[in-house]
Amino acid sequence: MSEKIPLSKIIEPEEKSWLKIIFCWRSSVIPAIIPRVIFCGLFGLLISLIHYYYTDVGLPVLSSVVPSIVLGLLLVFRTNTAYERFWEGRKLWGSLVNSIRNLARMIWVSVTENSPKDREEKSKTLRLLVVFAITTKLHLRGQPINSEIRDLIPECWYERLQEVHNPPLQVALLIGEYLQQEFERNCINSYQLTAMLKLLDTMVDVLGGCERILKTPIPVAYSIHLKQLLLIYCLTLPFQLVTELAWWTPPIVSVISFTVFGIEQIGIEIENPFGLDANDLPLESICQTIQINIEELIDFIPRLRERKIF
Amino acid sequence: MSEKIPLSKIIEPEEKSWLKIIFCWRSSVIPAIIPRVIFCGLFGLLISLIHYYYTDVGLPVLSSVVPSIVLGLLLVFRTNTAYERFWEGRKLWGSLVNSIRNLARMIWVSVTENSPKDREEKSKTLRLLVVFAITTKLHLRGQPINSEIRDLIPECWYERLQEVHNPPLQVALLIGEYLQQEFERNCINSYQLTAMLKLLDTMVDVLGGCERILKTPIPVAYSIHLKQLLLIYCLTLPFQLVTELAWWTPPIVSVISFTVFGIEQIGIEIENPFGLDANDLPLESICQTIQINIEELIDFIPRLRERKIF
Amino acid sequence: MSEKIPLSKIIEPEEKSWLKIIFCWRSSVIPAIIPRVIFCGLFGLLISLIHYYYTDVGLPVLSSVVPSIVLGLLLVFRTNTAYERFWEGRKLWGSLVNSIRNLARMIWVSVTENSPKDREEKSKTLRLLVVFAITTKLHLRGQPINSEIRDLIPECWYERLQEVHNPPLQVALLIGEYLQQEFERNCINSYQLTAMLKLLDTMVDVLGGCERILKTPIPVAYSIHLKQLLLIYCLTLPFQLVTELAWWTPPIVSVISFTVFGIEQIGIEIENPFGLDANDLPLESICQTIQINIEELIDFIPRLRERKIF
Amino acid sequence: MSEKIPLSKIIEPEEKSWLKIIFCWRSSVIPAIIPRVIFCGLFGLLISLIHYYYTDVGLPVLSSVVPSIVLGLLLVFRTNTAYERFWEGRKLWGSLVNSIRNLARMIWVSVTENSPKDREEKSKTLRLLVVFAITTKLHLRGQPINSEIRDLIPECWYERLQEVHNPPLQVALLIGEYLQQEFERNCINSYQLTAMLKLLDTMVDVLGGCERILKTPIPVAYSIHLKQLLLIYCLTLPFQLVTELAWWTPPIVSVISFTVFGIEQIGIEIENPFGLDANDLPLESICQTIQINIEELIDFIPRLRERKIF
Amino acid sequence: MSEKIPLSKIIEPEEKSWLKIIFCWRSSVIPAIIPRVIFCGLFGLLISLIHYYYTDVGLPVLSSVVPSIVLGLLLVFRTNTAYERFWEGRKLWGSLVNSIRNLARMIWVSVTENSPKDREEKSKTLRLLVVFAITTKLHLRGQPINSEIRDLIPECWYERLQEVHNPPLQVALLIGEYLQQEFERNCINSYQLTAMLKLLDTMVDVLGGCERILKTPIPVAYSIHLKQLLLIYCLTLPFQLVTELAWWTPPIVSVISFTVFGIEQIGIEIENPFGLDANDLPLESICQTIQINIEELIDFIPRLRERKIF
Repeated sequence: MSEKIPLSKIIEPEEKSWLKIIFCWRSSVIPAIIPRVIFCGLFGLLISLIHYYYTDVGLPVLSSVVPSIVLGLLLVFRTNTAYERFWEGRKLWGSLVNSIRNLARMIWVSVTENSPKDREEKSKTLRLLVVFAITTKLHLRGQPINSEIRDLIPECWYERLQEVHNPPLQVALLIGEYLQQEFERNCINSYQLTAMLKLLDTMVDVLGGCERILKTPIPVAYSIHLKQLLLIYCLTLPFQLVTELAWWTPPIVSVISFTVFGIEQIGIEIENPFGLDANDLPLESICQTIQINIEELIDFIPRLRERKIF
Repeated sequence: MSEKIPLSKIIEPEEKSWLKIIFCWRSSVIPAIIPRVIFCGLFGLLISLIHYYYTDVGLPVLSSVVPSIVLGLLLVFRTNTAYERFWEGRKLWGSLVNSIRNLARMIWVSVTENSPKDREEKSKTLRLLVVFAITTKLHLRGQPINSEIRDLIPECWYERLQEVHNPPLQVALLIGEYLQQEFERNCINSYQLTAMLKLLDTMVDVLGGCERILKTPIPVAYSIHLKQLLLIYCLTLPFQLVTELAWWTPPIVSVISFTVFGIEQIGIEIENPFGLDANDLPLESICQTIQINIEELIDFIPRLRERKIF
Repeated sequence: MSEKIPLSKIIEPEEKSWLKIIFCWRSSVIPAIIPRVIFCGLFGLLISLIHYYYTDVGLPVLSSVVPSIVLGLLLVFRTNTAYERFWEGRKLWGSLVNSIRNLARMIWVSVTENSPKDREEKSKTLRLLVVFAITTKLHLRGQPINSEIRDLIPECWYERLQEVHNPPLQVALLIGEYLQQEFERNCINSYQLTAMLKLLDTMVDVLGGCERILKTPIPVAYSIHLKQLLLIYCLTLPFQLVTELAWWTPPIVSVISFTVFGIEQIGIEIENPFGLDANDLPLESICQTIQINIEELIDFIPRLRERKIF
Repeated sequence: MSEKIPLSKIIEPEEKSWLKIIFCWRSSVIPAIIPRVIFCGLFGLLISLIHYYYTDVGLPVLSSVVPSIVLGLLLVFRTNTAYERFWEGRKLWGSLVNSIRNLARMIWVSVTENSPKDREEKSKTLRLLVVFAITTKLHLRGQPINSEIRDLIPECWYERLQEVHNPPLQVALLIGEYLQQEFERNCINSYQLTAMLKLLDTMVDVLGGCERILKTPIPVAYSIHLKQLLLIYCLTLPFQLVTELAWWTPPIVSVISFTVFGIEQIGIEIENPFGLDANDLPLESICQTIQINIEELIDFIPRLRERKIF
Repeated sequence: MSEKIPLSKIIEPEEKSWLKIIFCWRSSVIPAIIPRVIFCGLFGLLISLIHYYYTDVGLPVLSSVVPSIVLGLLLVFRTNTAYERFWEGRKLWGSLVNSIRNLARMIWVSVTENSPKDREEKSKTLRLLVVFAITTKLHLRGQPINSEIRDLIPECWYERLQEVHNPPLQVALLIGEYLQQEFERNCINSYQLTAMLKLLDTMVDVLGGCERILKTPIPVAYSIHLKQLLLIYCLTLPFQLVTELAWWTPPIVSVISFTVFGIEQIGIEIENPFGLDANDLPLESICQTIQINIEELIDFIPRLRERKIF
């Protein structure tokens, strides 16, 4: 609990090594677009060869076929929309973190404990909150329920969760059942129940919101039209440039296609932010943060009360 | 219940087959804009013929009549607005899914059951939630109440719903009546009633929000002005290009008109996202998801309680 | 109640008759901008005459005086801001529809009826909700209270509403008084009162939001600066083009000025969306929808209860 | 109370006198930017003189130093951000109007009156709401508490408000104290208290929101960079244009610098919308509207009850 | 308490000294980008030397490699996103200020005092609110708990806070414990407790929101791609310009690279707004404002009650 990593560390690198970032290969979009870039370069080479050995195929006026302003605006629109989904996904997970923190604090502080077993029940439910986060992560990634959550819940629940379509929804149901039961045992009053159920609703809203982002990509007509324009743009480039650039055509065409395909590719990569790519959201570390916060909470309060601070 | 399809499957294809998507005909806007594109091509041919056989009609300075930057910005504004409606529509349906899930869980967990008939009443009401989603879908599409909901509600309600202007509003009323009745029978307390009614209000808000998107297209003055500019732009193109391109004019004019009409057409198609086109929202599958979640819930809780897990 | 018009009808026309829309005169901005366009055309003619009979006044370098990119961005910013107000206005009215529907359902379902007179009181209050919508519409249009609402409220209130500054605010007060009175008579409990008052607050929020949009146009400095740039732009056009276009200058200048003034005019027209223009919000039909929904509600519930469905 | 001014009057002028607005001097940004524009014109004159009498200083290639597209986008970003703050400020004040209306209606309707003194207390508190709005206005403008509010509150409070850092916060405290006291006297129940306190919280939120807009201008690095680019752009203009324009350089440079400085100046002026400029929010008239609404409310209800309408 | 600084002072300077701001060095991005700018200038010099002494390396057609429109749009997208995070961070802190003010007022007004010790407890809790703000600031900056908060809390808590991962979360827990304890002692009722806990939840939401902004920079693929394009753009500049500009190439290239790197750098600087730079949020002064407001509150109410104003 003392290996505290300053949060600001995560940002600082960018400010320092401007140049290093440029050559960062793994997180960049280069691996994904390299085939298309090479194809465009080879096509440029072909046109250069035809231009040199057969006939003049230069047509500079083709530059108006896909005006660069129109293409630029479409690419930015694409990037913008994809980024908004990325950021909305991040906000939803942020809201999940907040709701779990608040609900955990509320359960821990408000539910009356009559016996040591109640304390145990509480810890079990608090860990269910962590399970909600983890099953949501797995559900969004299309992964089956795995050992990550085995230690956190009883065996019979674990089996049940493996059967259902939507495991986090079942976890929410279990939490709801616990709260209702404590309410019926008069361990919480109805105001507290209402407030807690609202937080539970928010958690289910987050689940629904993430599913929405995942299941509804940008309208496919848009996606197709952009790809078609990009292809037309890149294939007309050699005809525009070959007269002036001669044998420089292939490398220059490659660089230009790298520019535009790269922007489109970023859009594709961050559109679904729940995957396992380098550019996706760090869901693993978010789930871990939640788990640490919950364990710290379970650990803190009893010690607080023993010392009878208030 | 074991044929779980990983959600992530839906996105993956895009990441794999970049090239295949380009030639996807059905979902693209090509069928819709092909007549306009052919018309522009033929007009380009006509101008080429006149240019070649009669007199020089080339007027390159016409390029400033509708500056491509202005046209580009307007097209992007159009796309942007249409996409915002598309996405708002999706958000509303996402919020409907969330509200129904939460309300269903609340009814199932909180309403006290005194007799087996109460259990039946509950199931009936939970299915009413599904009916709300389906009637909203039908209402937004202007379709009559059909057999989809016949099995979910009693016959007398079914007849009534066929008579009214706004069926989902009547379904909301029926749910409201049920909750009020359970409240009067002391099966839920007033806090729970309030919380449930708020969720019901959210459902009616979604209905109103969808109607708003459907009934209020982009201001017609804007729509007309954009179409006028597009037509002027495409009709001046051959005069700008004929001097330099000669017989290449018709195909090039076709490609340019394809570019700009395509962007406008996407705007038109996604502006009303509740239809049956390939680019509209998958309302069918959303309604199905709701139905599956509800049936799983009806199935889960009793088994949970029998085992007396808590 | 059987003349149900499919909602989707309203959008479909656009999808069908692309060409017809272009020549739609009444809803377009043409009538509003025609004087300015003719003025610019005549100015172009004047410059052409001077150019031909007196001296060369061509100055192609003037094209950089108001760069078309800067003008384009400003116009799009203008359109964007105006559209946002239009859409916010629409959202506010959508929220009014939702609140009225929810409040009406709540009053009808929750308020206990002890005598037939109570039923009458209820209907009277439900109609007050319709009056709230209609008076808001009239208030936003600066129209006096008129016969539209005479049949919906008692005479003495009608007179009172004619005297005050802000009639919808007084209607909200009357509804608030009714709810408070029912609360004091124990016909609703405090939870229900609170929920209903919140909906009433939302209705007053809508009123305030609409007043805000109406009373706060875009900052006048912005509006002036844009108009000044547009004028400079259009008046330098003939000097730029006359050398190359000769006698084609007047028509071309007219078309360009039509393009840019048209975009500005759309901004002006939709900035205040509560008026009576073809491009304003269909407040009449929204108020009618509210009235139909309320009347259907008044008609539905008693029949439901008689059949004792639950 | 009969001198009702139709709200729509405020917008109409724009629609009528398009040309008049152009020459509206006071509200435009011209007075603020005239020195910079003249400076640029004189600099242009200097370059023209050097060009004509000494040596050729024309350097048309300088046009790429600050590409007009980059400058245009930055200016629009600036305008956009400033406008968003302007509009957010307006929304906050709109929300203040709504909260005060709702809180006033609630206090007037819900608080039980046992004696004529209670009625007086009520009026006093309702006027405190007006005082909250006025002190917020003064606080945002950095003006001291003045006679505007002297008639609305008792002398001892008036003195106290003059002493403190944040007068509206103290007014909120006084209103909170009143509500708490009525609650302790059983004149309102806890639900009503909660609802009222929420509205009071909203009022304090508005205060905090306005302070936030006021205290956090656009990041200064951005502001500096934009000014630097503008200066570089305007100072390279004469070199670009002098070869072609000769003695027309000074006026043309003036017009261009007028265009770009004007856009930046609008951003500066509307960034802090709480001042006293012609382009700032009409806080005076908003406070007056609040006062009129409150006085009408104080006047209306007793007459309503006397006639025993319900 | 009389050294009141008018808030408007903070904005005014910008309006006055337009020219002074340009030469403000410390807050500008110049120090950060100067190495890159010099590098580009030296590279330009190198190309000029090669061009002059060896061979013609001018390639004006390279201007289409990274079209300035595409680069411009990407830079604006970058600035936009960064500014949105800056502004969202500011909003979160604004919301923290509001919540603390409201919660403090509520605690001070609503919690019944039975003994002088209760008053003391209250003051202690109010100061805990200040501690929440300060620890959040320190947590976001990765700084350890320091003497700033030593005087505000008891020693034992101070030690505990030094041990944990997330100190503000523990402070929220302490506040929650206090409220629960007062509730159990019947000093506040459940409505008041619910309202207060909601405000506490908002405070924890702010903490989570700030962590989200801090931990999730713009997707790194985007950041890399932009840097790559900027480098390609700046390195092709000398080839484009050297033919025309000759020995003017180095300074002009420097100015252009200053323009574009400057915009990118602003994005980097304001992306994480919680640091200690001149362009970051003034968290110190926000925390101070909170402290002043709380102390003024602790000071005001008792004096108000002594005078028995109500």
